[in-house]
Amino acid sequence: MAVPPGADPARAAASAVADHCRRVLDATAPACVAVKLQSASFERLGPDGLRALRDVAEHARSLDLLVLLDAKRGDIDVSAAAYAAAAFDGVDTPWGPVPGTAADAVTVAPYMGRDSVRPFVDAGRASGGGVFVLVRTSNPGAADLQEHPMEDGEPVWARVARMVADLGAPSVAGTAPISDVGAVVGATAPERLRRLRELMPSTPFLLPGVGAQGGRVEDLAAAFAPGPGSAIVTASRSVVGAGDGDDDPAPAARRAAEELRALAAAL
Amino acid sequence: MAVPPGADPARAAASAVADHCRRVLDATAPACVAVKLQSASFERLGPDGLRALRDVAEHARSLDLLVLLDAKRGDIDVSAAAYAAAAFDGVDTPWGPVPGTAADAVTVAPYMGRDSVRPFVDAGRASGGGVFVLVRTSNPGAADLQEHPMEDGEPVWARVARMVADLGAPSVAGTAPISDVGAVVGATAPERLRRLRELMPSTPFLLPGVGAQGGRVEDLAAAFAPGPGSAIVTASRSVVGAGDGDDDPAPAARRAAEELRALAAAL
Repeated sequence: MAVPPGADPARAAASAVADHCRRVLDATAPACVAVKLQSASFERLGPDGLRALRDVAEHARSLDLLVLLDAKRGDIDVSAAAYAAAAFDGVDTPWGPVPGTAADAVTVAPYMGRDSVRPFVDAGRASGGGVFVLVRTSNPGAADLQEHPMEDGEPVWARVARMVADLGAPSVAGTAPISDVGAVVGATAPERLRRLRELMPSTPFLLPGVGAQGGRVEDLAAAFAPGPGSAIVTASRSVVGAGDGDDDPAPAARRAAEELRALAAAL
Repeated sequence: MAVPPGADPARAAASAVADHCRRVLDATAPACVAVKLQSASFERLGPDGLRALRDVAEHARSLDLLVLLDAKRGDIDVSAAAYAAAAFDGVDTPWGPVPGTAADAVTVAPYMGRDSVRPFVDAGRASGGGVFVLVRTSNPGAADLQEHPMEDGEPVWARVARMVADLGAPSVAGTAPISDVGAVVGATAPERLRRLRELMPSTPFLLPGVGAQGGRVEDLAAAFAPGPGSAIVTASRSVVGAGDGDDDPAPAARRAAEELRALAAAL
Protein backbone atom coordinates (compact mmCIF):
# COMPACT_ATOMS: atom_id res chain seq x y z
CA MET A 1 0.00 0.00 0.00
CA ALA A 2 1.40 3.38 -0.99
CA VAL A 3 1.47 5.82 1.91
CA PRO A 4 2.85 9.32 1.44
CA PRO A 5 6.03 9.89 3.47
CA GLY A 6 5.24 11.72 6.68
CA ALA A 7 1.68 10.44 6.80
CA ASP A 8 0.16 10.34 10.27
CA PRO A 9 0.66 6.72 11.46
CA ALA A 10 -2.80 6.38 13.05
CA ARG A 11 -4.57 7.78 10.02
CA ALA A 12 -2.53 5.68 7.59
CA ALA A 13 -3.00 2.47 9.58
CA ALA A 14 -6.73 3.07 10.07
CA SER A 15 -7.12 3.76 6.39
CA ALA A 16 -5.30 0.52 5.50
CA VAL A 17 -7.45 -1.48 7.93
CA ALA A 18 -10.65 0.02 6.52
CA ASP A 19 -9.51 -0.72 2.96
CA HIS A 20 -8.74 -4.32 3.87
CA CYS A 21 -12.11 -4.75 5.57
CA ARG A 22 -14.02 -3.27 2.67
CA ARG A 23 -12.33 -5.62 0.21
CA VAL A 24 -13.04 -8.66 2.40
CA LEU A 25 -16.65 -7.54 2.84
CA ASP A 26 -17.15 -7.07 -0.89
CA ALA A 27 -15.83 -10.57 -1.46
CA THR A 28 -17.65 -12.37 1.35
CA ALA A 29 -21.01 -10.57 1.54
CA PRO A 30 -22.80 -13.01 -0.81
CA ALA A 31 -21.94 -15.89 1.55
CA CYS A 32 -22.81 -14.08 4.81
CA VAL A 33 -25.78 -12.58 6.66
CA ALA A 34 -23.79 -10.43 9.04
CA VAL A 35 -20.36 -9.09 9.86
CA LYS A 36 -19.03 -9.20 13.42
CA LEU A 37 -16.71 -6.23 13.85
CA GLN A 38 -14.21 -6.65 16.69
CA SER A 39 -14.14 -3.23 18.32
CA ALA A 40 -10.72 -3.79 19.92
CA SER A 41 -9.02 -4.13 16.53
CA PHE A 42 -10.15 -0.65 15.62
CA GLU A 43 -9.84 0.97 19.06
CA ARG A 44 -6.14 0.20 19.24
CA LEU A 45 -5.75 2.74 16.42
CA GLY A 46 -7.32 5.48 18.53
CA PRO A 47 -9.85 8.03 17.26
CA ASP A 48 -8.88 7.30 13.64
CA GLY A 49 -9.52 3.62 14.30
CA LEU A 50 -12.98 4.37 15.66
CA ARG A 51 -13.71 6.38 12.54
CA ALA A 52 -12.56 3.41 10.43
CA LEU A 53 -14.88 1.11 12.41
CA ARG A 54 -17.83 3.30 11.55
CA ASP A 55 -16.83 3.55 7.89
CA VAL A 56 -16.58 -0.25 7.69
CA ALA A 57 -19.95 -0.66 9.43
CA GLU A 58 -21.52 1.70 6.92
CA HIS A 59 -19.96 -0.22 4.04
CA ALA A 60 -21.33 -3.49 5.46
CA ARG A 61 -24.82 -2.01 5.66
CA SER A 62 -24.54 -0.91 2.03
CA LEU A 63 -23.96 -4.60 1.21
CA ASP A 64 -27.13 -5.57 3.15
CA LEU A 65 -25.13 -7.21 5.91
CA LEU A 66 -26.24 -7.01 9.52
CA VAL A 67 -23.59 -5.32 11.68
CA LEU A 68 -22.74 -7.04 14.98
CA LEU A 69 -20.49 -4.85 17.08
CA ASP A 70 -18.33 -7.14 19.19
CA ALA A 71 -17.52 -4.72 22.00
CA LYS A 72 -18.30 -6.81 25.12
CA ARG A 73 -19.31 -3.70 27.04
CA GLY A 74 -20.84 -3.66 30.48
CA ASP A 75 -21.29 -0.98 33.13
CA ILE A 76 -23.88 0.52 35.45
CA ASP A 77 -26.96 2.49 34.42
CA VAL A 78 -25.83 5.82 32.96
CA SER A 79 -22.55 4.40 31.68
CA ALA A 80 -24.24 1.38 30.09
CA ALA A 81 -26.66 3.79 28.42
CA ALA A 82 -23.72 5.80 27.07
CA TYR A 83 -22.07 2.67 25.64
CA ALA A 84 -25.40 1.66 24.11
CA ALA A 85 -25.75 5.10 22.54
CA ALA A 86 -22.28 4.73 21.01
CA ALA A 87 -23.17 1.29 19.62
CA PHE A 88 -26.62 2.13 18.32
CA ASP A 89 -28.14 5.51 17.54
CA GLY A 90 -25.85 8.08 19.14
CA VAL A 91 -26.88 10.96 21.40
CA ASP A 92 -28.55 14.32 21.20
CA THR A 93 -26.41 17.21 22.39
CA PRO A 94 -27.04 20.95 22.72
CA TRP A 95 -25.13 21.26 19.43
CA GLY A 96 -27.20 18.67 17.56
CA PRO A 97 -27.28 14.89 17.16
CA VAL A 98 -24.03 12.93 17.36
CA PRO A 99 -24.25 9.61 15.48
CA GLY A 100 -23.43 6.19 16.91
CA THR A 101 -22.05 3.14 15.13
CA ALA A 102 -25.62 2.21 14.09
CA ALA A 103 -24.96 -1.46 14.80
CA ASP A 104 -27.76 -4.00 14.52
CA ALA A 105 -26.50 -5.74 17.66
CA VAL A 106 -23.77 -5.38 20.27
CA THR A 107 -22.12 -7.94 22.55
CA VAL A 108 -22.46 -7.30 26.29
CA ALA A 109 -20.68 -8.74 29.36
CA PRO A 110 -22.96 -10.07 32.14
CA TYR A 111 -20.81 -9.91 35.28
CA MET A 112 -22.41 -6.72 36.63
CA GLY A 113 -25.91 -8.21 36.39
CA ARG A 114 -29.28 -7.50 34.93
CA ASP A 115 -29.32 -3.72 35.44
CA SER A 116 -26.05 -3.46 33.47
CA VAL A 117 -27.53 -5.34 30.48
CA ARG A 118 -30.96 -3.71 30.48
CA PRO A 119 -29.86 -0.27 29.10
CA PHE A 120 -28.41 -2.05 26.06
CA VAL A 121 -31.65 -4.00 25.56
CA ASP A 122 -33.73 -0.84 25.89
CA ALA A 123 -31.55 1.16 23.50
CA GLY A 124 -31.52 -1.73 21.04
CA ARG A 125 -35.31 -1.97 21.09
CA ALA A 126 -35.60 1.76 20.43
CA SER A 127 -33.42 1.45 17.33
CA GLY A 128 -34.53 -1.98 16.07
CA GLY A 129 -31.35 -3.63 17.32
CA GLY A 130 -30.47 -6.31 19.81
CA VAL A 131 -27.78 -7.56 22.15
CA PHE A 132 -25.80 -10.76 22.52
CA VAL A 133 -24.85 -11.43 26.14
CA LEU A 134 -21.72 -13.48 26.90
CA VAL A 135 -22.93 -16.78 28.35
CA ARG A 136 -20.31 -19.44 27.63
CA THR A 137 -17.34 -18.00 25.75
CA SER A 138 -14.97 -19.77 23.38
CA ASN A 139 -11.66 -19.20 25.18
CA PRO A 140 -9.93 -21.74 27.48
CA GLY A 141 -10.23 -19.28 30.41
CA ALA A 142 -14.01 -19.55 30.19
CA ALA A 143 -13.60 -22.50 32.55
CA ASP A 144 -12.18 -20.30 35.35
CA LEU A 145 -15.50 -18.73 36.26
CA GLN A 146 -18.24 -19.78 33.79
CA GLU A 147 -17.82 -23.52 34.36
CA HIS A 148 -17.58 -23.29 38.14
CA PRO A 149 -20.49 -25.13 39.84
CA MET A 150 -22.96 -23.15 41.90
CA GLU A 151 -24.75 -24.47 44.98
CA ASP A 152 -27.49 -26.06 42.89
CA GLY A 153 -24.83 -28.01 40.98
CA GLU A 154 -25.21 -26.02 37.78
CA PRO A 155 -22.36 -23.99 36.31
CA VAL A 156 -22.27 -20.20 36.39
CA TRP A 157 -23.19 -20.06 32.70
CA ALA A 158 -26.55 -21.69 33.46
CA ARG A 159 -27.49 -18.80 35.75
CA VAL A 160 -26.47 -16.27 33.10
CA ALA A 161 -28.44 -18.25 30.51
CA ARG A 162 -31.58 -17.93 32.65
CA MET A 163 -31.01 -14.18 32.97
CA VAL A 164 -30.66 -13.89 29.19
CA ALA A 165 -33.84 -15.90 28.54
CA ASP A 166 -35.71 -13.74 31.04
CA LEU A 167 -34.44 -10.41 29.68
CA GLY A 168 -35.70 -11.36 26.22
CA ALA A 169 -39.08 -12.54 27.44
CA PRO A 170 -41.18 -9.43 26.69
CA SER A 171 -40.29 -9.69 23.04
CA VAL A 172 -40.96 -13.43 22.97
CA ALA A 173 -44.36 -12.91 24.56
CA GLY A 174 -45.17 -10.44 21.82
CA THR A 175 -45.15 -11.08 18.12
CA ALA A 176 -41.54 -12.22 17.59
CA PRO A 177 -40.79 -15.95 17.83
CA ILE A 178 -37.11 -15.15 18.37
CA SER A 179 -35.90 -13.14 21.37
CA ASP A 180 -34.06 -9.86 20.81
CA VAL A 181 -31.63 -10.75 23.62
CA GLY A 182 -29.13 -13.23 22.25
CA ALA A 183 -26.36 -15.31 23.77
CA VAL A 184 -22.69 -15.68 22.89
CA VAL A 185 -21.97 -19.40 23.09
CA GLY A 186 -18.53 -20.58 22.05
CA ALA A 187 -18.35 -23.17 19.30
CA THR A 188 -15.41 -24.65 21.19
CA ALA A 189 -17.71 -26.25 23.80
CA PRO A 190 -20.33 -28.02 21.63
CA GLU A 191 -21.25 -30.49 24.40
CA ARG A 192 -22.89 -27.55 26.25
CA LEU A 193 -25.18 -26.61 23.39
CA ARG A 194 -28.11 -28.91 24.14
CA ARG A 195 -28.43 -27.66 27.73
CA LEU A 196 -27.96 -24.04 26.70
CA ARG A 197 -30.71 -24.44 24.11
CA GLU A 198 -33.01 -25.93 26.78
CA LEU A 199 -32.37 -22.95 29.05
CA MET A 200 -32.78 -20.41 26.23
CA PRO A 201 -35.30 -21.89 23.76
CA SER A 202 -36.07 -18.66 21.89
CA THR A 203 -32.65 -17.02 22.10
CA PRO A 204 -30.49 -16.47 19.03
CA PHE A 205 -27.03 -17.87 19.59
CA LEU A 206 -23.87 -16.22 18.32
CA LEU A 207 -21.33 -19.01 17.91
CA PRO A 208 -17.73 -17.75 17.72
CA GLY A 209 -14.66 -19.95 17.91
CA VAL A 210 -14.93 -21.77 14.59
CA GLY A 211 -11.66 -21.99 12.67
CA ALA A 212 -8.66 -20.38 14.34
CA GLN A 213 -9.93 -21.30 17.84
CA GLY A 214 -10.62 -24.93 16.95
CA GLY A 215 -14.44 -25.09 16.88
CA ARG A 216 -16.10 -27.14 14.10
CA VAL A 217 -19.34 -26.20 12.36
CA GLU A 218 -20.23 -29.90 12.12
CA ASP A 219 -20.56 -30.04 15.93
CA LEU A 220 -23.08 -27.20 16.27
CA ALA A 221 -26.37 -28.76 15.19
CA ALA A 222 -27.91 -28.57 18.69
CA ALA A 223 -27.68 -24.76 18.55
CA PHE A 224 -30.00 -24.52 15.56
CA ALA A 225 -33.20 -25.66 17.26
CA PRO A 226 -35.95 -24.53 17.04
CA GLY A 227 -35.21 -23.07 13.60
CA PRO A 228 -32.49 -22.01 11.21
CA GLY A 229 -32.78 -18.36 12.26
CA SER A 230 -31.76 -19.19 15.80
CA ALA A 231 -27.99 -19.28 15.50
CA ILE A 232 -25.23 -17.40 13.69
CA VAL A 233 -21.88 -19.10 13.18
CA THR A 234 -19.07 -16.56 13.18
CA ALA A 235 -15.52 -17.00 11.96
CA SER A 236 -13.08 -14.13 12.08
CA ARG A 237 -9.39 -14.89 11.70
CA SER A 238 -10.02 -17.89 9.43
CA VAL A 239 -11.86 -15.63 6.96
CA VAL A 240 -10.18 -12.22 7.32
CA GLY A 241 -6.73 -13.80 7.48
CA ALA A 242 -7.30 -16.50 4.84
CA GLY A 243 -5.41 -14.46 2.24
CA ASP A 244 -2.58 -13.29 4.50
CA GLY A 245 0.43 -12.75 2.30
CA ASP A 246 -1.66 -12.52 -0.88
CA ASP A 247 -1.67 -9.25 -2.79
CA ASP A 248 -5.46 -9.34 -2.72
CA PRO A 249 -7.04 -10.86 0.44
CA ALA A 250 -10.45 -11.13 -1.20
CA PRO A 251 -10.35 -14.43 -3.15
CA ALA A 252 -9.14 -16.51 -0.19
CA ALA A 253 -11.62 -14.81 2.15
CA ARG A 254 -14.44 -15.55 -0.28
CA ARG A 255 -13.48 -19.24 -0.46
CA ALA A 256 -13.29 -19.49 3.35
CA ALA A 257 -16.70 -17.85 3.80
CA GLU A 258 -18.33 -20.04 1.14
CA GLU A 259 -16.93 -23.21 2.68
CA LEU A 260 -18.30 -22.14 6.06
CA ARG A 261 -21.73 -21.41 4.60
CA ALA A 262 -21.86 -24.81 2.92
CA LEU A 263 -21.00 -26.54 6.20
CA ALA A 264 -23.66 -24.60 8.12
CA ALA A 265 -26.29 -25.21 5.45
CA ALA A 266 -25.68 -28.96 5.75
CA LEU A 267 -26.55 -29.05 9.48
CA MET B 1 -20.45 28.21 25.90
CA ALA B 2 -20.29 30.02 22.57
CA VAL B 3 -20.35 27.67 19.59
CA PRO B 4 -20.19 29.02 16.05
CA PRO B 5 -23.38 28.30 14.09
CA GLY B 6 -22.92 25.24 11.89
CA ALA B 7 -20.28 23.72 14.17
CA ASP B 8 -19.99 19.94 13.91
CA PRO B 9 -22.09 18.63 16.86
CA ALA B 10 -19.65 15.86 17.83
CA ARG B 11 -16.66 18.18 17.77
CA ALA B 12 -18.48 20.93 19.67
CA ALA B 13 -19.84 18.54 22.32
CA ALA B 14 -16.48 16.81 22.77
CA SER B 15 -14.77 20.16 23.11
CA ALA B 16 -17.27 21.27 25.75
CA VAL B 17 -16.84 18.03 27.69
CA ALA B 18 -13.06 18.33 27.60
CA ASP B 19 -13.24 21.96 28.77
CA HIS B 20 -15.51 20.99 31.66
CA CYS B 21 -13.20 18.14 32.67
CA ARG B 22 -10.09 20.31 32.55
CA ARG B 23 -11.73 22.94 34.78
CA VAL B 24 -12.85 20.31 37.29
CA LEU B 25 -9.39 18.71 37.25
CA ASP B 26 -7.65 22.05 37.81
CA ALA B 27 -9.92 22.67 40.79
CA THR B 28 -9.80 19.22 42.37
CA ALA B 29 -6.24 18.00 41.67
CA PRO B 30 -4.84 19.27 45.00
CA ALA B 31 -7.33 17.07 46.88
CA CYS B 32 -6.89 13.94 44.71
CA VAL B 33 -4.29 11.32 43.79
CA ALA B 34 -6.00 10.08 40.64
CA VAL B 35 -8.79 10.72 38.18
CA LYS B 36 -11.08 7.89 37.07
CA LEU B 37 -12.18 8.66 33.52
CA GLN B 38 -15.39 6.89 32.49
CA SER B 39 -14.70 5.79 28.93
CA ALA B 40 -18.40 5.48 28.05
CA SER B 41 -19.01 9.19 28.64
CA PHE B 42 -16.47 10.02 25.97
CA GLU B 43 -17.19 7.14 23.58
CA ARG B 44 -20.79 8.21 23.13
CA LEU B 45 -19.38 11.25 21.33
CA GLY B 46 -17.62 9.03 18.78
CA PRO B 47 -14.09 9.59 17.47
CA ASP B 48 -14.13 13.20 18.69
CA GLY B 49 -15.08 11.94 22.14
CA LEU B 50 -12.18 9.52 22.16
CA ARG B 51 -9.86 12.39 21.25
CA ALA B 52 -11.31 14.41 24.14
CA LEU B 53 -10.71 11.47 26.51
CA ARG B 54 -7.05 11.46 25.57
CA ASP B 55 -6.75 15.23 25.87
CA VAL B 56 -8.28 15.08 29.35
CA ALA B 57 -5.98 12.20 30.35
CA GLU B 58 -2.98 14.24 29.22
CA HIS B 59 -4.19 17.24 31.19
CA ALA B 60 -4.59 15.06 34.30
CA ARG B 61 -1.03 13.78 33.93
CA SER B 62 0.22 17.37 33.66
CA LEU B 63 -1.37 17.93 37.09
CA ASP B 64 0.48 14.88 38.50
CA LEU B 65 -2.70 12.86 38.79
CA LEU B 66 -2.75 9.13 38.10
CA VAL B 67 -5.12 8.28 35.25
CA LEU B 68 -7.50 5.35 35.83
CA LEU B 69 -9.31 4.47 32.62
CA ASP B 70 -12.68 3.03 33.62
CA ALA B 71 -13.37 0.99 30.48
CA LYS B 72 -14.38 -2.41 31.94
CA ARG B 73 -12.93 -4.20 28.93
CA GLY B 74 -12.60 -7.95 28.57
CA ASP B 75 -12.03 -10.25 25.62
CA ILE B 76 -9.90 -13.18 24.47
CA ASP B 77 -6.14 -13.11 23.79
CA VAL B 78 -5.53 -10.96 20.70
CA SER B 79 -8.54 -8.76 21.34
CA ALA B 80 -7.65 -8.25 25.01
CA ALA B 81 -4.16 -7.30 23.90
CA ALA B 82 -5.63 -4.77 21.46
CA TYR B 83 -7.77 -3.20 24.18
CA ALA B 84 -4.75 -3.11 26.47
CA ALA B 85 -2.72 -1.39 23.75
CA ALA B 86 -5.45 1.23 23.41
CA ALA B 87 -5.50 1.82 27.17
CA PHE B 88 -1.75 1.87 27.75
CA ASP B 89 1.05 2.41 25.25
CA GLY B 90 -0.53 2.05 21.82
CA VAL B 91 0.74 -0.09 18.93
CA ASP B 92 3.50 -0.13 16.37
CA THR B 93 2.28 -0.14 12.78
CA PRO B 94 4.11 -0.23 9.42
CA TRP B 95 3.52 3.52 9.35
CA GLY B 96 4.96 4.21 12.78
CA PRO B 97 3.79 4.12 16.39
CA VAL B 98 0.15 4.89 17.20
CA PRO B 99 -0.27 6.18 20.75
CA GLY B 100 -2.68 4.77 23.34
CA THR B 101 -4.47 6.57 26.15
CA ALA B 102 -1.34 6.16 28.33
CA ALA B 103 -3.46 5.32 31.36
CA ASP B 104 -1.83 4.29 34.63
CA ALA B 105 -4.51 1.64 35.14
CA VAL B 106 -7.57 0.27 33.39
CA THR B 107 -10.65 -1.53 34.74
CA VAL B 108 -11.23 -5.05 33.39
CA ALA B 109 -14.24 -7.42 33.48
CA PRO B 110 -13.55 -10.96 34.75
CA TYR B 111 -16.34 -13.08 33.25
CA MET B 112 -14.18 -14.55 30.47
CA GLY B 113 -11.56 -15.77 32.95
CA ARG B 114 -7.89 -15.54 33.65
CA ASP B 115 -6.64 -15.60 30.04
CA SER B 116 -8.83 -12.59 29.27
CA VAL B 117 -7.32 -10.56 32.12
CA ARG B 118 -3.70 -11.61 31.66
CA PRO B 119 -3.02 -9.55 28.47
CA PHE B 120 -4.02 -6.42 30.37
CA VAL B 121 -1.72 -7.34 33.27
CA ASP B 122 1.16 -8.05 30.89
CA ALA B 123 0.69 -4.83 28.93
CA GLY B 124 0.36 -2.86 32.15
CA ARG B 125 3.59 -4.31 33.51
CA ALA B 126 5.40 -3.39 30.29
CA SER B 127 4.29 0.23 30.63
CA GLY B 128 4.39 0.62 34.41
CA GLY B 129 0.63 0.43 34.71
CA GLY B 130 -1.86 -1.86 36.36
CA VAL B 131 -5.38 -3.18 36.18
CA PHE B 132 -8.41 -3.16 38.45
CA VAL B 133 -10.58 -6.24 37.96
CA LEU B 134 -14.30 -6.04 38.74
CA VAL B 135 -14.87 -8.18 41.83
CA ARG B 136 -17.93 -6.85 43.67
CA THR B 137 -19.45 -3.89 41.86
CA SER B 138 -21.46 -1.04 43.32
CA ASN B 139 -24.72 -1.44 41.39
CA PRO B 140 -27.86 -3.22 42.69
CA GLY B 141 -27.60 -5.78 39.85
CA ALA B 142 -24.29 -6.97 41.29
CA ALA B 143 -26.44 -9.33 43.35
CA ASP B 144 -27.73 -11.16 40.24
CA LEU B 145 -24.50 -13.03 39.58
CA GLN B 146 -21.73 -11.85 41.94
CA GLU B 147 -23.63 -12.63 45.14
CA HIS B 148 -24.89 -16.03 44.00
CA PRO B 149 -23.51 -18.86 46.18
CA MET B 150 -21.24 -21.44 44.62
CA GLU B 151 -21.10 -25.08 45.66
CA ASP B 152 -18.60 -24.32 48.45
CA GLY B 153 -21.07 -21.80 49.89
CA GLU B 154 -19.04 -18.76 48.91
CA PRO B 155 -20.38 -16.14 46.51
CA VAL B 156 -19.11 -15.78 42.95
CA TRP B 157 -17.15 -12.66 43.94
CA ALA B 158 -15.00 -14.77 46.29
CA ARG B 159 -13.81 -16.91 43.37
CA VAL B 160 -13.00 -13.82 41.34
CA ALA B 161 -11.19 -12.34 44.35
CA ARG B 162 -8.95 -15.43 44.51
CA MET B 163 -8.19 -15.10 40.79
CA VAL B 164 -7.26 -11.45 41.30
CA ALA B 165 -4.97 -12.23 44.25
CA ASP B 166 -3.30 -14.99 42.24
CA LEU B 167 -2.81 -12.88 39.11
CA GLY B 168 -1.01 -10.25 41.15
CA ALA B 169 1.17 -12.73 43.00
CA PRO B 170 4.39 -12.44 40.91
CA SER B 171 4.59 -8.78 41.76
CA VAL B 172 3.85 -9.39 45.41
CA ALA B 173 6.54 -12.07 45.59
CA GLY B 174 9.00 -9.55 44.18
CA THR B 175 9.86 -6.20 45.63
CA ALA B 176 6.46 -4.51 45.71
CA PRO B 177 4.34 -4.84 48.85
CA ILE B 178 1.24 -3.90 46.88
CA SER B 179 0.00 -6.02 43.96
CA ASP B 180 -0.28 -4.48 40.49
CA VAL B 181 -3.59 -6.28 39.94
CA GLY B 182 -6.27 -4.38 41.80
CA ALA B 183 -9.93 -5.03 42.54
CA VAL B 184 -13.04 -2.93 42.00
CA VAL B 185 -15.07 -3.25 45.18
CA GLY B 186 -18.23 -1.20 45.47
CA ALA B 187 -18.49 1.14 48.44
CA THR B 188 -22.19 0.28 48.48
CA ALA B 189 -21.55 -3.13 50.09
CA PRO B 190 -19.22 -2.27 52.99
CA GLU B 191 -20.13 -5.45 54.92
CA ARG B 192 -18.18 -7.41 52.27
CA LEU B 193 -14.95 -5.49 52.75
CA ARG B 194 -13.42 -7.51 55.57
CA ARG B 195 -13.77 -10.83 53.70
CA LEU B 196 -12.57 -9.27 50.44
CA ARG B 197 -9.51 -7.92 52.23
CA GLU B 198 -8.81 -11.39 53.69
CA LEU B 199 -8.98 -12.93 50.22
CA MET B 200 -6.85 -10.20 48.64
CA PRO B 201 -4.42 -8.98 51.34
CA SER B 202 -2.01 -7.16 49.00
CA THR B 203 -4.51 -5.96 46.42
CA PRO B 204 -5.27 -2.26 45.95
CA PHE B 205 -9.01 -1.68 46.08
CA LEU B 206 -10.82 0.82 43.90
CA LEU B 207 -13.94 1.81 45.81
CA PRO B 208 -16.61 3.42 43.61
CA GLY B 209 -20.17 4.11 44.67
CA VAL B 210 -19.59 6.89 47.19
CA GLY B 211 -21.97 9.82 46.88
CA ALA B 212 -24.55 9.52 44.09
CA GLN B 213 -24.82 5.73 44.53
CA GLY B 214 -25.25 5.91 48.30
CA GLY B 215 -21.91 4.59 49.62
CA ARG B 216 -20.37 6.34 52.66
CA VAL B 217 -16.63 6.87 53.17
CA GLU B 218 -17.12 6.36 56.91
CA ASP B 219 -18.02 2.68 56.26
CA LEU B 220 -14.88 1.77 54.32
CA ALA B 221 -12.21 1.41 57.01
CA ALA B 222 -11.84 -2.36 56.47
CA ALA B 223 -10.61 -1.72 52.91
CA PHE B 224 -7.59 0.22 54.07
CA ALA B 225 -5.69 -2.66 55.71
CA PRO B 226 -2.80 -3.34 55.53
CA GLY B 227 -1.85 0.27 54.75
CA PRO B 228 -3.15 3.60 53.51
CA GLY B 229 -1.94 2.95 49.95
CA SER B 230 -4.19 -0.05 49.62
CA ALA B 231 -7.46 1.59 48.62
CA ILE B 232 -8.65 4.46 46.48
CA VAL B 233 -12.06 5.97 47.14
CA THR B 234 -13.63 7.29 43.95
CA ALA B 235 -16.54 9.64 43.59
CA SER B 236 -17.72 10.75 40.18
CA ARG B 237 -21.12 12.33 39.88
CA SER B 238 -20.96 13.87 43.36
CA VAL B 239 -17.79 15.75 42.36
CA VAL B 240 -18.16 16.42 38.63
CA GLY B 241 -21.82 17.34 39.03
CA ALA B 242 -21.49 19.28 42.29
CA GLY B 243 -21.65 22.57 40.46
CA ASP B 244 -24.41 21.66 38.00
CA GLY B 245 -26.19 24.85 37.11
CA ASP B 246 -23.31 27.05 38.27
CA ASP B 247 -21.55 29.20 35.69
CA ASP B 248 -18.25 27.71 36.86
CA PRO B 249 -18.38 24.08 38.04
CA ALA B 250 -14.95 24.31 39.65
CA PRO B 251 -15.64 25.77 43.13
CA ALA B 252 -18.36 23.24 44.02
CA ALA B 253 -16.25 20.38 42.65
CA ARG B 254 -13.29 21.50 44.74
CA ARG B 255 -15.41 21.62 47.89
CA ALA B 256 -16.83 18.14 47.22
CA ALA B 257 -13.36 16.67 46.62
CA GLU B 258 -11.90 18.28 49.72
CA GLU B 259 -14.76 17.03 51.89
CA LEU B 260 -14.18 13.53 50.56
CA ARG B 261 -10.46 13.71 51.25
CA ALA B 262 -11.06 14.83 54.80
CA LEU B 263 -13.44 11.92 55.40
CA ALA B 264 -10.97 9.39 53.96
CA ALA B 265 -8.06 10.84 55.93
CA ALA B 266 -10.04 10.37 59.14
CA LEU B 267 -10.40 6.59 58.65
